[in-house]
Amino acid sequence: MALHEEFRQFEIEVGQIVEEMRVFTEEGKIATYIPELRHADPDALACALYTKNGTCVSFGDKDRKFTLQSVSKVVALALAVMDSGEEQVFDKVGMEPTGGPFYSITRLELTSRSKPLNPMINAGALTVTSMIGGRTETEKVERLLRFIRELTGDDTTTYDRAVAASELKTADHNRALAYLLKGEGVIDSDIESLLDVYTKQCALSMRCCDLARIGFIFGHEGRSPETGEQIVPVPVARMVKTFMVTCGMYNESGELAIKAGIPAKSGVSGAILGSVPNGMGIGVYSPALNEKGNSRAGVELLKRLSRHFSLSIF
Amino acid sequence: MALHEEFRQFEIEVGQIVEEMRVFTEEGKIATYIPELRHADPDALACALYTKNGTCVSFGDKDRKFTLQSVSKVVALALAVMDSGEEQVFDKVGMEPTGGPFYSITRLELTSRSKPLNPMINAGALTVTSMIGGRTETEKVERLLRFIRELTGDDTTTYDRAVAASELKTADHNRALAYLLKGEGVIDSDIESLLDVYTKQCALSMRCCDLARIGFIFGHEGRSPETGEQIVPVPVARMVKTFMVTCGMYNESGELAIKAGIPAKSGVSGAILGSVPNGMGIGVYSPALNEKGNSRAGVELLKRLSRHFSLSIF
Amino acid sequence: MALHEEFRQFEIEVGQIVEEMRVFTEEGKIATYIPELRHADPDALACALYTKNGTCVSFGDKDRKFTLQSVSKVVALALAVMDSGEEQVFDKVGMEPTGGPFYSITRLELTSRSKPLNPMINAGALTVTSMIGGRTETEKVERLLRFIRELTGDDTTTYDRAVAASELKTADHNRALAYLLKGEGVIDSDIESLLDVYTKQCALSMRCCDLARIGFIFGHEGRSPETGEQIVPVPVARMVKTFMVTCGMYNESGELAIKAGIPAKSGVSGAILGSVPNGMGIGVYSPALNEKGNSRAGVELLKRLSRHFSLSIF
Amino acid sequence: MALHEEFRQFEIEVGQIVEEMRVFTEEGKIATYIPELRHADPDALACALYTKNGTCVSFGDKDRKFTLQSVSKVVALALAVMDSGEEQVFDKVGMEPTGGPFYSITRLELTSRSKPLNPMINAGALTVTSMIGGRTETEKVERLLRFIRELTGDDTTTYDRAVAASELKTADHNRALAYLLKGEGVIDSDIESLLDVYTKQCALSMRCCDLARIGFIFGHEGRSPETGEQIVPVPVARMVKTFMVTCGMYNESGELAIKAGIPAKSGVSGAILGSVPNGMGIGVYSPALNEKGNSRAGVELLKRLSRHFSLSIF
Repeated sequence: MALHEEFRQFEIEVGQIVEEMRVFTEEGKIATYIPELRHADPDALACALYTKNGTCVSFGDKDRKFTLQSVSKVVALALAVMDSGEEQVFDKVGMEPTGGPFYSITRLELTSRSKPLNPMINAGALTVTSMIGGRTETEKVERLLRFIRELTGDDTTTYDRAVAASELKTADHNRALAYLLKGEGVIDSDIESLLDVYTKQCALSMRCCDLARIGFIFGHEGRSPETGEQIVPVPVARMVKTFMVTCGMYNESGELAIKAGIPAKSGVSGAILGSVPNGMGIGVYSPALNEKGNSRAGVELLKRLSRHFSLSIF
Repeated sequence: MALHEEFRQFEIEVGQIVEEMRVFTEEGKIATYIPELRHADPDALACALYTKNGTCVSFGDKDRKFTLQSVSKVVALALAVMDSGEEQVFDKVGMEPTGGPFYSITRLELTSRSKPLNPMINAGALTVTSMIGGRTETEKVERLLRFIRELTGDDTTTYDRAVAASELKTADHNRALAYLLKGEGVIDSDIESLLDVYTKQCALSMRCCDLARIGFIFGHEGRSPETGEQIVPVPVARMVKTFMVTCGMYNESGELAIKAGIPAKSGVSGAILGSVPNGMGIGVYSPALNEKGNSRAGVELLKRLSRHFSLSIF
Repeated sequence: MALHEEFRQFEIEVGQIVEEMRVFTEEGKIATYIPELRHADPDALACALYTKNGTCVSFGDKDRKFTLQSVSKVVALALAVMDSGEEQVFDKVGMEPTGGPFYSITRLELTSRSKPLNPMINAGALTVTSMIGGRTETEKVERLLRFIRELTGDDTTTYDRAVAASELKTADHNRALAYLLKGEGVIDSDIESLLDVYTKQCALSMRCCDLARIGFIFGHEGRSPETGEQIVPVPVARMVKTFMVTCGMYNESGELAIKAGIPAKSGVSGAILGSVPNGMGIGVYSPALNEKGNSRAGVELLKRLSRHFSLSIF
Repeated sequence: MALHEEFRQFEIEVGQIVEEMRVFTEEGKIATYIPELRHADPDALACALYTKNGTCVSFGDKDRKFTLQSVSKVVALALAVMDSGEEQVFDKVGMEPTGGPFYSITRLELTSRSKPLNPMINAGALTVTSMIGGRTETEKVERLLRFIRELTGDDTTTYDRAVAASELKTADHNRALAYLLKGEGVIDSDIESLLDVYTKQCALSMRCCDLARIGFIFGHEGRSPETGEQIVPVPVARMVKTFMVTCGMYNESGELAIKAGIPAKSGVSGAILGSVPNGMGIGVYSPALNEKGNSRAGVELLKRLSRHFSLSIF
């Protein structure tokens, strides 16, 4: 079979899998706590695979734009480590997974008075964002935009203003976390500025192929798929994938590590970023969530793709 | 360079690394809560690598015997899933990592009244052991011995009677956990019998090459390195490695996943089992522990070996 | 109005109040976790007042016998302090109220590794019972029976064998607590013997007038209402009432302190002991419980009696 | 002995007791987390007794002014219940004591997502302050000042500007609590305005005789000692004393209830308000604190006064 034929076959298979998984959207529910997210189409399902040869194939509702939400935590982590150094970042944030839900203040208090458990829970993510380079709020947002555009390879990638504004209005729980961390000396910044940067970070908006390209870069030592340029240092790309496995899927992380074995990070928008070491980059979007807060169809799709193409790292 | 030369070179390099790591034994402390473990030699360090060609090379105090302690949790998990089925086991025990310490009753109560978080915390491990096949205590212990002997390839592998007896005498915390789980309907067995099996399981005794062979089998789809026979089913071997990454090293799991990226499980005896997917099996013993309860020198050795031989799965 | 007339009037008023409160029994539920308690009559309501002149008036289903359950915790506390000394008891058990539910293991772990918060939670009560005088289980039970008979003034008071046996069979949660405390060095005794004494203590059986007499003694400096003999030392009688106010009614203690202001201790059998300093002793029995585990009608009755006769200590 | 002689004797006795207790100041430490409080004199001890005949006798460093800090929580509670009604207040705040420390966020999350445990912990106190009458921040502060002046009987009573400003600067932990409660719909107000009122409330400043007068009013059905006018409704005065017993002294409340039995509320400034039902009002100031955050000498003084004059309510 010619390579072209083989690829055609691959496209047909994935297309079928994606359509089979669409039925799971019916079992999920749209997130409602951020007002702007309520407008999402509960039946939507999109999937993109960024493959070894540097091309992206996408399926389903592939032109829908969506915000990253918690998926942005891995982007911000990479950037903060690049800007402030690994030592500085992990002096303020721990490395340990947690079985608890993402909003947990309890875990923050119980295990360590002065250090959020890891960069994937909100307390940790807020701390990480405070360590993105830039003297002002504007500089930090610009720094973040420059970085995300390198990752997507698209100079027009930006945040969704309506979603960012909507999140800022309902950010009292994150505001509470941030002030708690400030009171304990973990966060140094002005809190309102930090929340402004953080909500814009969460509102970064893109299509599934953009997301798959990010996964591909993290999976290939942080290098640009076109130029081979080092966008993210090798150890940072590796670290990001590690957090994706141990705590990327809220308290479904352990289960997905067993059943799919693909480093993955989800957001309440229904986005999932997948990054197979030395393999595909995966971008999924399907906003109907399961009770753990992960995309219902997205989780099933990852498991199915992993089995079909033997993608598990274990 | 001839293969033989290359292997000789490999031996020299690892031998040097092991001796360089021995200095870390001075920073650790022997576990004291099980009286029999207090007799261990705090300076000891042993390391074995079971390599692709099915041979074991070992270094340092390689003839010391040691008990598995919590390392036995992964062995018991594989066995319980083989005997009772994945569905039955994970109906009783969760799959999620936890940032908390291994003895946590708090975590048991807070996140789920009826299900320990995962099979690596004591509450989960006790539940898992209750699902090893056998109608009586004696049958269960025999089943366990048959299985461990298949894994080590040594028909004389057994448990250390003195350590087992010593643990049984000081098992009140585990007894409490077990009765709590019985009260909640998670464990069905007679608790004293269960504790007897559990302490014998923890007291399984071997040398570092035996441990490395177990790691090799888990790393190679569960097959015997000599005969290719399926000792552990493929999905079970994979699942075991996943738990080793997400929660195999107590609350140092996340950090070791980042810094070494090797599926690993530790015990308070100072043992560490390492299992590189499609790569080496690793057995380490060094009883001086760090404040997280992991072998101080053992942890450093894993990081160093990973960097030196590029063993990270991420 | 002659004294006799006045007393007659008092009887009529209380009789009316008790019958008015009976409607609340419909809103409660019988405790089911101890099998023997399921046989209780959900409509039952009994109330006894032991008044200044040393007589007991009783109302409703006043001849029903019931077991003390957690009400026995105050009896055991008084006895343990008399037998082992205040210092010894409070070296092992704290004095602080807790807003959490009575079965909390969480609280035990979080606030103090080695000391239950107070003698009214199960962990504390088990520790207290371990300090009742007696070298053997039999001696301890005899000691307890001698003491309870002094308090009720009835030489036939004993425990209900069927209830004690039923509780022992379902005592796994208490067994877990006890082993946890033993593992931490708080409890010294053989745990099975301790549970035997503890379940007999909980199964002490009496009528509402017996209970009211106990409340009268605690309310009058620990003296016998007939002979003035010191059954309980003055500071012990005072301490017991303090614990009744701060943590006698599970997590309804604060609310009842505000709304009735009477030192009171409840049990899941539906018993409530009330003790007005220098005033009445109160015994209530009504087994239909509210969601906090207190007698539904009993709680309403205490509030009503307090308002009617101005019994609040505040 | 003439009444005048008797009173003279009383003064001599109390004076001796106060001076005997001064030695305990050496065992305490000044609170340091609010910068302005660091200037306090660690040796200071003042005590005032407001007695039945409406006069105040005071001892030690009786002219020192001090801020109320957490003592103000009972004042604000009385006022909020008067302004917003008992039902409204306890719809938002619970009534149960807690064994945990006063800053606990954990307790807030664990037992109830939407309701602080009681009005004496910071989360509850902030909620209570938000229910003081007044449309603006200025109106609320004026309302509070009018009320405190009725209680002290001194039209010049006001807050200490330097302390209030100092607290506002270091209020990030309280800010975090307030935003958390806002996010959960418990608090409705603008948070910065609320914190402004709250810090002024905590900074209310007076001498020990002023404090003793407040205790006298709460102890005498809320009536003015001179005019008999109802400053606080009877049930509110009673409720306030109940909270003082069950949770007025942080996690030393249970112990002090047993050892003194006087309704009391402490603050980190070293102030303690005591209120004997139908008896004395007590004002103590001694800024050297014990490890529970209560005035070291003040606690000893309360115990001693209670024993000497038989003040226990139990």
